[in-house]
Amino acid sequence: MAAAPVWSVDPRTGNPREQVAVEATAEEVDRAVRAAHAVRGALADRTVRAAFLRTAADLLAEAQDRIVETADAETALGPVRLTGELARTAAQLRAFAEVVDEGAYLDIHIDHEDGSRTPPWPDLRRYKIPLGVVAVYAASNFPLAFSVPGGDTASALAAGCPVVVKAHPDHPATSALCASILRTAASRNGLPEDVVSVLHGFDAGVELVKHPLISAAGFTGSIRGGRALFDAAAARPTPIPFHGELGSLNPVVVTEAAAAERGEQIGAGLGGSMTMGTGQFCTKPGFVFAPSGAAGDRLLKSLTETVGATGAGTMLDHRMRDAFVKGVAERAALPDVETPVTPGAGDEHTVSAGFLTVPARRLAEQGPHDALLEECFGPVTVVARYDSPDEITAVLSRLPGNLTATLQIATEEADGSAAGLLGELTPVAGRVLVNGWPTGVAVAPAQHHGGPYPATTSTSTSVGATAIERWLRPVSYQSTPEALLPPELREDNPQGLPRRVDGRRA
Amino acid sequence: MAAAPVWSVDPRTGNPREQVAVEATAEEVDRAVRAAHAVRGALADRTVRAAFLRTAADLLAEAQDRIVETADAETALGPVRLTGELARTAAQLRAFAEVVDEGAYLDIHIDHEDGSRTPPWPDLRRYKIPLGVVAVYAASNFPLAFSVPGGDTASALAAGCPVVVKAHPDHPATSALCASILRTAASRNGLPEDVVSVLHGFDAGVELVKHPLISAAGFTGSIRGGRALFDAAAARPTPIPFHGELGSLNPVVVTEAAAAERGEQIGAGLGGSMTMGTGQFCTKPGFVFAPSGAAGDRLLKSLTETVGATGAGTMLDHRMRDAFVKGVAERAALPDVETPVTPGAGDEHTVSAGFLTVPARRLAEQGPHDALLEECFGPVTVVARYDSPDEITAVLSRLPGNLTATLQIATEEADGSAAGLLGELTPVAGRVLVNGWPTGVAVAPAQHHGGPYPATTSTSTSVGATAIERWLRPVSYQSTPEALLPPELREDNPQGLPRRVDGRRA
Repeated sequence: MAAAPVWSVDPRTGNPREQVAVEATAEEVDRAVRAAHAVRGALADRTVRAAFLRTAADLLAEAQDRIVETADAETALGPVRLTGELARTAAQLRAFAEVVDEGAYLDIHIDHEDGSRTPPWPDLRRYKIPLGVVAVYAASNFPLAFSVPGGDTASALAAGCPVVVKAHPDHPATSALCASILRTAASRNGLPEDVVSVLHGFDAGVELVKHPLISAAGFTGSIRGGRALFDAAAARPTPIPFHGELGSLNPVVVTEAAAAERGEQIGAGLGGSMTMGTGQFCTKPGFVFAPSGAAGDRLLKSLTETVGATGAGTMLDHRMRDAFVKGVAERAALPDVETPVTPGAGDEHTVSAGFLTVPARRLAEQGPHDALLEECFGPVTVVARYDSPDEITAVLSRLPGNLTATLQIATEEADGSAAGLLGELTPVAGRVLVNGWPTGVAVAPAQHHGGPYPATTSTSTSVGATAIERWLRPVSYQSTPEALLPPELREDNPQGLPRRVDGRRA
Repeated sequence: MAAAPVWSVDPRTGNPREQVAVEATAEEVDRAVRAAHAVRGALADRTVRAAFLRTAADLLAEAQDRIVETADAETALGPVRLTGELARTAAQLRAFAEVVDEGAYLDIHIDHEDGSRTPPWPDLRRYKIPLGVVAVYAASNFPLAFSVPGGDTASALAAGCPVVVKAHPDHPATSALCASILRTAASRNGLPEDVVSVLHGFDAGVELVKHPLISAAGFTGSIRGGRALFDAAAARPTPIPFHGELGSLNPVVVTEAAAAERGEQIGAGLGGSMTMGTGQFCTKPGFVFAPSGAAGDRLLKSLTETVGATGAGTMLDHRMRDAFVKGVAERAALPDVETPVTPGAGDEHTVSAGFLTVPARRLAEQGPHDALLEECFGPVTVVARYDSPDEITAVLSRLPGNLTATLQIATEEADGSAAGLLGELTPVAGRVLVNGWPTGVAVAPAQHHGGPYPATTSTSTSVGATAIERWLRPVSYQSTPEALLPPELREDNPQGLPRRVDGRRA
């Protein structure tokens, strides 16, 4: 059987651009994983790892023109967005280099021998070690920041884990280019290139998560694809952690007072956030509670103007475009659903943005309108008009888990009167925003990009410094002579690492 | 259909003692979980939680005579061991009260707004919140420390999660007694009793892990039972974290020099550790590499004396006794396996301790001898005699994951020459010991009680302060007005909690 070719396709025309690779066979998956496993020891030195991550950032920045051009040609995301995404990707690699240098992520605990305890404590020293080879499944919608050189790769390498990336079929040329840059960065730091490699092909992705030498996986994508891989990871003879980001509705609650105070501004902000990047952000606000009545009407008028003025957009591929057109049509056909701006097909390659409205009470109980509680990838949002806050509570309790939940309040509600609503949003999301928009995820230590299932399949974040925790496991050394201990755990702390000694920060 | 009775049984005679309860029906499981879910808000206050844990410790200590008597009658573990286990259990509850008071586990990060970042950072504040109702599956072999009032319950309550415990059938009376004490402790602190409840019955346990309002599970037990529950947790429409401790061989490597220096002492220590508690510890050293030749022979002679002098013991139940007798007989029948002290049946209710020897080279490749690489619960260990260190390496690479791995070295090897062997043991275990024995697990911050599968199904520990992390998830608040923030995240830090502010410890 001939190997299936992997084509880079121009989503603006649907035409193939070039053949980038062939899909990896099971043997090639095995070879890549074994090669990565064989070189894992090379990543043991934290100083070398940090230098590698910084070189990768430098080389990606140097190749900006070529990367942005390649990524734009096969994703249509546009040079402005892609230039920003590349800068963020490089910054992320540098941020993880800092995390590695600082070493707090090692979570070092030292408890000296203590005969006064019942029973007596031996000398115990714990830190965290890398899990092993990590499989990364690249996202469609971030060809850089959540793909080959993205957060999963950066955090896994920072942890000391070699990475095998399953490229997304929407940007194979960008994937190949970035992989080559990462491998060069490894080589320039004296590391074997096989600390990072890239595979193409759906079947290769399934083989990858089942490979006995894969120790953990990171995924960003759809509920269907992510759940299938999660299930495969759990069904292995030796199950592995599967950190998947699967899908999110990202609800927004606009209070009556907020709509009265600045309905126009909220409508415009919502319109901008939900159409940004042709609605292809994981954090797109896809479901909005807006009050019935005049204030809510003003919000909708402003939303109508903003969304109506949005030009047609190109989605990442034609399959997504078709799914969007079908998804919005099905939703729009439900009873009591209206479309002030009808989303759907643009020309044969594009989509046009729009939004739906529905009475919130329609969603208080199970029924066909539950389709409106499922993410629809693309430039559409659902506005649920409520008559009373009770309807918000009833529908919130039926929502699946989310990456974000947003509260839009009036100035006077910041005094604490909105605390109840904030308390209702916290259980359904991993990040709660007030008077902002969820698109845009700062790569900050306090960030949490994750949430109750299906937002993510684990309790970890995929953005921010603590993302490194996903690829580590603790190990304790008991009564181990100084000369046999890893340097991180030696009494004199030769690496100057932050630690907790006998229960106190040292 | 009449509800199945739950009997407390005396393992010393096999006779039923008393009917303690009936097995919970699916409706009763649903009722218990809903009751726990309904009162989860009561656990929000950290001060109250800490007080509750301390009251629980006090009340358990006060009831020592009754608890030890009840537990001994249905487990035969003996009053000395059970008195120690109760003290450890109470200490564990108090240790988690300290963890709650200190609040470092909240892992608070605050990043102030920073317009100099590209793109600008909003104000972000993250901490960890309880996951929800936790299902705890009690262990057979620790009726207190890993059962109703044990580490999973203590850490989940410390995290702010209500707990529903599935009692182990080997000690239903102890479970009922301890549950009643915990519920009294809740009540004395103004908490609803339903923050902890106990269910009996195998089917109830299966229902429990599938219940939509269960958010996470902790388990200590067999590979078969644990894997079935792990699979059920992963197959839920909304999968949940399943922190299971399933099985461990706990390998020991005795170097040639160690055997030469103190073979007798090592043999005696091994004999004591493997027969302690009738070999029913998760950390029992079940597989030992000992050198061929005279030094190893001396070790075996000493082991023979120690094990041979060990009296018959009563296991936790007759099913385990029968499984032990069958398991050791099957292993002893393998070619080249010898039994210097033959393990097996004692009288009709007891077992006698023993050990097997096998040439290590027999285990270097897949074959019938792989049965020796599976845990055999009870007072038996396997001594693999090696001719060269290469045989150790070959067999270690074939071992499943372990809670512990132990290295016995000579004085002169502490200078660093044993570092290579220590490096080979680290990948197969969560705790690595030098010149000690793995039975006995200190409840210390630097402890890690977990390891590669099947030792545990997650990377977390079930013993020590960090066990609390299993029951939490992070949430970030973005641009949230001070008055709406939870107190833990307010700017002026009213609770005086340790935090990281703008990347620095504060």
